[in-house]
Amino acid sequence: MPRFSYISHLQCPKCKKIYAHTEKQHLCSCGAPLLVDYDIDSLRAQWHPEDLQIRGTSLWRYHELLPVQSAHHVVSLSEGMTPLNSMPKMAESMGIKHLLMKDEGSIPTGTFKARGAAVGISKALELGVKSIIMPTNGNAGAAWSLYASRAGIQATIVMPVEAPEITRKECTIAGANLYLVDGLISDAGKMVAAELKEAPDLYDASTLKEPYRIEGKKTMGLEILEQLDWQVPDVILYPCGGGVGLIGIYKALRELQRLGWIGDRLPRLVAVQAEGCAPIVKAWEEGRAESEFWPHSKTVAFGINVPKALGDFLILEALKATEGYAIAIDDETVLQEQQRVARLEGAFICPEGAATFAAARQLRDKGWIKAEETVVTLNTGNGLKYPNTVQSDAPLLKPGTKLNDNRHKTK
Amino acid sequence: MPRFSYISHLQCPKCKKIYAHTEKQHLCSCGAPLLVDYDIDSLRAQWHPEDLQIRGTSLWRYHELLPVQSAHHVVSLSEGMTPLNSMPKMAESMGIKHLLMKDEGSIPTGTFKARGAAVGISKALELGVKSIIMPTNGNAGAAWSLYASRAGIQATIVMPVEAPEITRKECTIAGANLYLVDGLISDAGKMVAAELKEAPDLYDASTLKEPYRIEGKKTMGLEILEQLDWQVPDVILYPCGGGVGLIGIYKALRELQRLGWIGDRLPRLVAVQAEGCAPIVKAWEEGRAESEFWPHSKTVAFGINVPKALGDFLILEALKATEGYAIAIDDETVLQEQQRVARLEGAFICPEGAATFAAARQLRDKGWIKAEETVVTLNTGNGLKYPNTVQSDAPLLKPGTKLNDNRHKTK
Repeated sequence: MPRFSYISHLQCPKCKKIYAHTEKQHLCSCGAPLLVDYDIDSLRAQWHPEDLQIRGTSLWRYHELLPVQSAHHVVSLSEGMTPLNSMPKMAESMGIKHLLMKDEGSIPTGTFKARGAAVGISKALELGVKSIIMPTNGNAGAAWSLYASRAGIQATIVMPVEAPEITRKECTIAGANLYLVDGLISDAGKMVAAELKEAPDLYDASTLKEPYRIEGKKTMGLEILEQLDWQVPDVILYPCGGGVGLIGIYKALRELQRLGWIGDRLPRLVAVQAEGCAPIVKAWEEGRAESEFWPHSKTVAFGINVPKALGDFLILEALKATEGYAIAIDDETVLQEQQRVARLEGAFICPEGAATFAAARQLRDKGWIKAEETVVTLNTGNGLKYPNTVQSDAPLLKPGTKLNDNRHKTK
Repeated sequence: MPRFSYISHLQCPKCKKIYAHTEKQHLCSCGAPLLVDYDIDSLRAQWHPEDLQIRGTSLWRYHELLPVQSAHHVVSLSEGMTPLNSMPKMAESMGIKHLLMKDEGSIPTGTFKARGAAVGISKALELGVKSIIMPTNGNAGAAWSLYASRAGIQATIVMPVEAPEITRKECTIAGANLYLVDGLISDAGKMVAAELKEAPDLYDASTLKEPYRIEGKKTMGLEILEQLDWQVPDVILYPCGGGVGLIGIYKALRELQRLGWIGDRLPRLVAVQAEGCAPIVKAWEEGRAESEFWPHSKTVAFGINVPKALGDFLILEALKATEGYAIAIDDETVLQEQQRVARLEGAFICPEGAATFAAARQLRDKGWIKAEETVVTLNTGNGLKYPNTVQSDAPLLKPGTKLNDNRHKTK
């Protein structure tokens, strides 16, 4: 009989130790994050791409490959199947034939964090969790607060005071316990760890410290492939902070291979960072398997201001295995690309997403991306959450004033 | 041979005069807005609900019933098929069995205005328009600016200085000519009209002054019915400013009847206004066929601050024909419902959308909505665009501080 989920166990990607998925689990005893595995041998015989045609458009269409075992525990706001839009004028400006943007701006909470929150909170509910805690650069905290409310779970969130202000308000209106810290996400993480020692009944929902957020993020990879009719693109560029999305996309690709839905060839994965916070790029360039803490990090692309990612070794492994790349972009270039995408393609994207366009342009200039390749950029969030990235100096007129001579400029 | 669009002509709903859809048209010579008609007799034989199953999820899945005649003119960011989410805890709090929210927060630009802009701009492109102008309460201007950029059309936008600030930034990053006015949308409208006299080559994209925006909005009605598997709900509540969405939903229902996809029974349509701007409610209560200008209008739900709607007679006709209702909500109640929706259901909605929940609650209390009925509220936009509706007083801590004793409150 078909199962709702084909989850089989959790496994440490470093020391290979196995854990049961039926109990609350966090890091492996060796300190590495745990990854979910599935009974793909059974699933392969039961599940085919055609089965998806008649399913709803939320990410739960892939429920067999998600960790929640009962449909009753699914906490959903219909997140998923975000647009994969062609960007023909941006493509032309770069000299690339096929440029597509996976747009995570059109999803509940306005960022891709909704995916991790939907699956993470659903699994927490299934495991009987009543109260979660996490550090965040803003968007994840907002998404987890809102999904926690839908699930009836209490959330406690610690975020840097410089995180996008709107994310604070999302946590507040959701009824979360919110704390701001005059520091970075790494400082918030330490305060969460200290709190967990005093209140072990809290569920640690920190990035990669619970194994299920990544399963939600993985669905970006499943959707990109389904939207391309299971034709593998040449390059996927991802704005890399904690890197869960990139690790998730790579995990999705491997699972699709095991299912036989795609062949041997994988897209080259690119981790895009900010020049002001580029630990993965540094490790990549030095050929190392892990990154070092990046001191005094700073960037307008706040979501990727992560000085040391717990999953750095998984990110670097994914780049290596796919013959990918790691590249850093300066803030000024990020904001230029953000504006260019709006003016040419009509999409108001977040700075993290804009960085991936800048990266595509630079990699095309270098010749690393070829003209005829199919390239996918990942816009992780809506520009609406980053009002400070745009300055408007529109004239203020009294009623009845004639519009001035600047009117109807042509482009 | 199947046609991409079955548009046949434009017609004045007041004096019944007919116009050609192949040329630019604005108001009827009698002053009323024009509506699009389709060759539904031909379409009925060609097109069936099952045909939709294999189509993409944008609103263009209904292209036969949209006015754009060539697929080459479609300007799209994959807008449409927004979630229709169940709201079980809100339903329970009101004593309603089936409460669903159509959530237009998950669409490009974060509001339902994207629908009107996508179809309006596509048709403008098909008609050879190079430059548009419009007054706006913010969100429509933002959406039209961005879609205009995607189409390569220049936009000129006039908006009240009190419109949501983010919408200014959307216009600016899209490259629109933006003017702010120290007044209401009615003042902006007069300034646009004056400008049009001096520059008749500009295309007037004001609400209902071009006939195609409503066709985009109509798709909300088509989607709600498709998402309910063509089962007609009992009540649909809509936050009513200019009322184009409500007129559009009513138009969609009538067209679905003519197609034979739904039967005689229609949902009762409810126009929800703010107490500080309720011209439709006043006209409804007085049994009039048109509304009067509402002086000194003011409400936190800025999108419905429209003192006099050009399509008022069409709104009132739709309410009457469906045995609907018109109701006004005060701002404090709006903000309470907005918070309740976030705390209970995990959705951060706009104040206009919150007003529809308040209206449902009041109409249930009155007995006008029955316990066993299926009720659909329309959330027209994302709460992210209204940061000022939420105050956050989270404590600011130094790195290393212990989280205080307010921690992990239970709900």
